[in-house]
Amino acid sequence: MPDSATLQALRDAVEAAFDEELRFLADIVRFQSLRGREAPLQDFLARWLAGRGYAVDRFSLADVPLTSHPKAAPMVEVDPAQSIQVVATRRCGEANGRSLILQGHIDVVPEGPAEMWSVPPYSAAVRDGWLYGRGAHDMKSGVAAMVFAMEAIRAAGWCPAGDVHVMTVTEEESTGNGALATLLRGYRADAVLIPEPTGGTITRAHTGTLWFRLRVRGVPVHVAVAQTGSNAITSAMRLVQALENHTVTLNREARSHRWYSEVMDPIKFNPGIIRGGDWASSTPAWCEVDCRIGLLPGSDVQEAMAAVERCVAEAARGDRFLEENPPEILWHGFQADGYALEPGSEAEAVLAQAHRHAFGEEMGARISTAVNDTRYYGLYYDIPALCYGPRGEGAHGFDERTDIEFLRTTTLSIAAFIADWCGLKPLE
Amino acid sequence: MPDSATLQALRDAVEAAFDEELRFLADIVRFQSLRGREAPLQDFLARWLAGRGYAVDRFSLADVPLTSHPKAAPMVEVDPAQSIQVVATRRCGEANGRSLILQGHIDVVPEGPAEMWSVPPYSAAVRDGWLYGRGAHDMKSGVAAMVFAMEAIRAAGWCPAGDVHVMTVTEEESTGNGALATLLRGYRADAVLIPEPTGGTITRAHTGTLWFRLRVRGVPVHVAVAQTGSNAITSAMRLVQALENHTVTLNREARSHRWYSEVMDPIKFNPGIIRGGDWASSTPAWCEVDCRIGLLPGSDVQEAMAAVERCVAEAARGDRFLEENPPEILWHGFQADGYALEPGSEAEAVLAQAHRHAFGEEMGARISTAVNDTRYYGLYYDIPALCYGPRGEGAHGFDERTDIEFLRTTTLSIAAFIADWCGLKPLE
Repeated sequence: MPDSATLQALRDAVEAAFDEELRFLADIVRFQSLRGREAPLQDFLARWLAGRGYAVDRFSLADVPLTSHPKAAPMVEVDPAQSIQVVATRRCGEANGRSLILQGHIDVVPEGPAEMWSVPPYSAAVRDGWLYGRGAHDMKSGVAAMVFAMEAIRAAGWCPAGDVHVMTVTEEESTGNGALATLLRGYRADAVLIPEPTGGTITRAHTGTLWFRLRVRGVPVHVAVAQTGSNAITSAMRLVQALENHTVTLNREARSHRWYSEVMDPIKFNPGIIRGGDWASSTPAWCEVDCRIGLLPGSDVQEAMAAVERCVAEAARGDRFLEENPPEILWHGFQADGYALEPGSEAEAVLAQAHRHAFGEEMGARISTAVNDTRYYGLYYDIPALCYGPRGEGAHGFDERTDIEFLRTTTLSIAAFIADWCGLKPLE
Repeated sequence: MPDSATLQALRDAVEAAFDEELRFLADIVRFQSLRGREAPLQDFLARWLAGRGYAVDRFSLADVPLTSHPKAAPMVEVDPAQSIQVVATRRCGEANGRSLILQGHIDVVPEGPAEMWSVPPYSAAVRDGWLYGRGAHDMKSGVAAMVFAMEAIRAAGWCPAGDVHVMTVTEEESTGNGALATLLRGYRADAVLIPEPTGGTITRAHTGTLWFRLRVRGVPVHVAVAQTGSNAITSAMRLVQALENHTVTLNREARSHRWYSEVMDPIKFNPGIIRGGDWASSTPAWCEVDCRIGLLPGSDVQEAMAAVERCVAEAARGDRFLEENPPEILWHGFQADGYALEPGSEAEAVLAQAHRHAFGEEMGARISTAVNDTRYYGLYYDIPALCYGPRGEGAHGFDERTDIEFLRTTTLSIAAFIADWCGLKPLE
């Protein structure tokens, strides 16, 4: 651990730049970096980081051999060439400390109807200690924390003694291909920290995720003779019901899982988008449902996909119309493994000490029922991968917001972690 | 009944103009007269009818006091001022015969994905004795039949001895306001014939129809904590299930109905359009379902609407989230009564005789589980209202088509009906 004078200097530097950090956060929240529309924010970040002396590598998902990797996920309705990644590297002469990747995703999920928000969803409004906005919490707050942790070190007159790659990536909310692309581009380090908004806890385990689109056809007829046709909407509802039942079975099995035995129903199934039909008085000819289902660490992705396909096929077999017009499953996104960070790593110990210093209490651990990008590092590249960051509310919902005071302390905690993990040397 | 020489002259005239009738039908099928987009076809028809010597009155739904009528239905997302009606009147000097309204709707329902059709849906392709296209069957074939029945009379050298109003209306598929508007405009007659494609049967009874939009809100959250939110899609599915159960009850009661006791499940409930959510991994914040449900002749529309509202409210009471976020019901279209044409009318007897002459067999009767526009005349204006017309397949579905030979015979049948009902006098 850095000595107390160093820690105090970091604290002072975080404090001194915190207004600027909040302005930075507000700036990046104002970008509507929805899927497929992240490039303008990535341009902003690339310029910003280059202006602070980073060596910036900017590339798209079309620039790496993504499809050849077994863990790449299919992308539908988005152009890989438009999906820009930013890797900003700080090298301080000869690297003799441990290297580190700091990575945050800047893609956000749709904000929904604006009238259901208390504030305009991209306004970055500040109220009662919270900064509001789609992405303010998940996870632009973490991006601000990691960037200004690095700024604090520099402002205090130091440079990390190991190479640090500050990365902003896309596709975290849909495939994970952004994080994977940085590895395919060749970046490696001795540890990775992804400051997802965990409320100052380390993520001990996260579930995997599958995305799929159910496509159901119907035989449209005039509703007057509805019994001779097939209603694709009600057929889709039967399939969703079958998948809900499938999820109940999966959650029963989860009760004996090493990390998830204490979590109630850790496998979440979600029909998230539905669309079908075009006239109230015609039996609908088609219905599509975009779904998400989880899987636990240690489960096999291919097996989980096959189980979904079996479930849908069995439900169709029980239905007169679906038997003849079998539903299709389009795998159109996440095919993500779950991941557990085994306790006892050096990286986690260093982070725990930094957290203790910043917050004055022990770092807790959490078991997550969502996915994050650490899996690529931990599972496939044997790099200790820490998921730890700020606190907020409303992820994927309305009035998403980050806790401003918590962000300040998290920034210090991450700065202390970098200082300890990489070591420091004076700026030249 | 006209004498046999007159009938033979009509038959010859229908025959002589039948190629022209088919071209006319193809022309009007090629107009994509979807709801809100009927005006170009109405312009075509107004010009065409004016060119044949009709006095043409063209007006919009905004030109009549529609909303003051208790049987007007709400229109959502369409502009009444854009909804054009055409009334073309043939007057042959002093009217001493019975007057007649011939009315057809020219609005069509959406055609669905074109790739599910064997032919382009507005191509009016002819194959194996059928003319294909959205609306070819429901009910542009009937429009062609009534228009060319009148043409045959004129070509044979006669004029109906009573005033005849040839009307093409909109909104039959959504509210019925087009037909109602012609009455509000002031048109009346001693009988009305609506040549819906009944396959040469008289419609003894038709059901009423209600349209409503279910609006369900959810509490969106990240799917990782789905149990703290509410999924508007699955909530909507529960409401649809409740409405299906409600329909079962209604159909049980229908077994004692005077006209529907022999019809299996005459009340049709149809969720026809669904849309909800915007991200597979967010619990959806909203879901809307456009629904249609029938009611039997003699049922009260207001009571049927109240029963739907009770059903939805009760289903919501059983659900933790819906209780706090009660679903809304938007009545956004049909509020249509059912109607039964009592047997024994003079108008029906005249039509039966015309049918016998044209087809060489007795006219059958059918009990319809869909709505048509005759109700306005029969229920509220005491005008005998006959629904009788050509034969086809695929209404509201793919490969909609009309039977060309049947259309020819139906045209003659309608010409004979006009001749007998109105009487004939020589053209001057």
